Amino acid sequence: MMNFIKEPTEIEKKSMAIIAPYVAEYNLSAEETKVYSRIIHAAGDVEYAPLIDIHPEAIAAIKTALRAGANIFTDVEMVRTGINKQKLAVYGGAVKCLIADERVKQCARETGITRAMAAMRTFGAELSGGIVAVGNAPTALFEVLRLIDEEKIMPAAIVGIPVGFVGAAEAKKALSENGKVPYITVSGTKGGSPIAAAAINAVLYQLE
Amino acid sequence: MMNFIKEPTEIEKKSMAIIAPYVAEYNLSAEETKVYSRIIHAAGDVEYAPLIDIHPEAIAAIKTALRAGANIFTDVEMVRTGINKQKLAVYGGAVKCLIADERVKQCARETGITRAMAAMRTFGAELSGGIVAVGNAPTALFEVLRLIDEEKIMPAAIVGIPVGFVGAAEAKKALSENGKVPYITVSGTKGGSPIAAAAINAVLYQLE
Repeated sequence: MMNFIKEPTEIEKKSMAIIAPYVAEYNLSAEETKVYSRIIHAAGDVEYAPLIDIHPEAIAAIKTALRAGANIFTDVEMVRTGINKQKLAVYGGAVKCLIADERVKQCARETGITRAMAAMRTFGAELSGGIVAVGNAPTALFEVLRLIDEEKIMPAAIVGIPVGFVGAAEAKKALSENGKVPYITVSGTKGGSPIAAAAINAVLYQLE
Repeated sequence: MMNFIKEPTEIEKKSMAIIAPYVAEYNLSAEETKVYSRIIHAAGDVEYAPLIDIHPEAIAAIKTALRAGANIFTDVEMVRTGINKQKLAVYGGAVKCLIADERVKQCARETGITRAMAAMRTFGAELSGGIVAVGNAPTALFEVLRLIDEEKIMPAAIVGIPVGFVGAAEAKKALSENGKVPYITVSGTKGGSPIAAAAINAVLYQLE
């Protein structure tokens, strides 16, 4: 039982080698391959491969924004926890999450919407030029799309990978059809905080 | 696009109703059904159902420990983030994670093992009577099993759902065969922090 790999770099190298054949068929760029691989690595699930959808300008847009010190706005604390904040801080950015904010709690109570949705509404214009990372709540992603449509708020890019059976597939489809902001998503019901964080980190680690 | 459910209780209720038929075939107790449903809910993936493995004494052991104020020991911060700490605190317990601890970082550097593994080693005897929740690192789960075997450390229960292609399936198999400590796991490569947190919360929410 105790004969297993304990060295972190070795584990990641072996993991990426195991994943490689599962993404080879998609004719990906080297940059896209890294995003696909980290998502599959985070989920332990090669069946993510055909579900991943990266807008052609998304990786470049995220890189440009991160290099310029853009902040990342997450729907829930788990996404914030999963993002490499030390690496992000090198470029001047931080991860912001308002789900536990008192204003947000009050807004959610008063309006009957989810806290994640209220959190995105509270960010409002602050999202312009930033990167949105949704890993849990479809409602948060729907709200960001509404802010783009109705309030002319323009994030640099959206990593939108909420999870679940109520609204997630629909919100991600709406994201992929938004036509204004480049995005990374995963179609269907699967997703989650580690998946959204993995997509962000995969691009972050490509900055030199 | 904007016609979606925004009310949190309604979302959860609908989600559980969608999941119900996928777990109906497993002849589960009401308690087990809640664990299965929350795991599937957290992953957005009904294909978890046949992979979930709950030791017959696990739910009772976790409940008893939580009621007595036991702490929960996690391998990574994302699992800590995902556990409902407010609810846990009602019974006196807290969630502990040492992955960012300086002693743990130093131990990992000096010995070439992962930080998550070093974290479990550093907890050591403190794990006895507590609940272990591993959501990321197979090495952390292997280390807990070693502590049980070699150092007579006895957690009340283990929720062991590490993820990935290097060691995760093996560590979870070893957990299911440990013969000493009741466990909740998911066989194979899939898993992750939200899944481990969901299993813990599913039991926590059953306490009145």
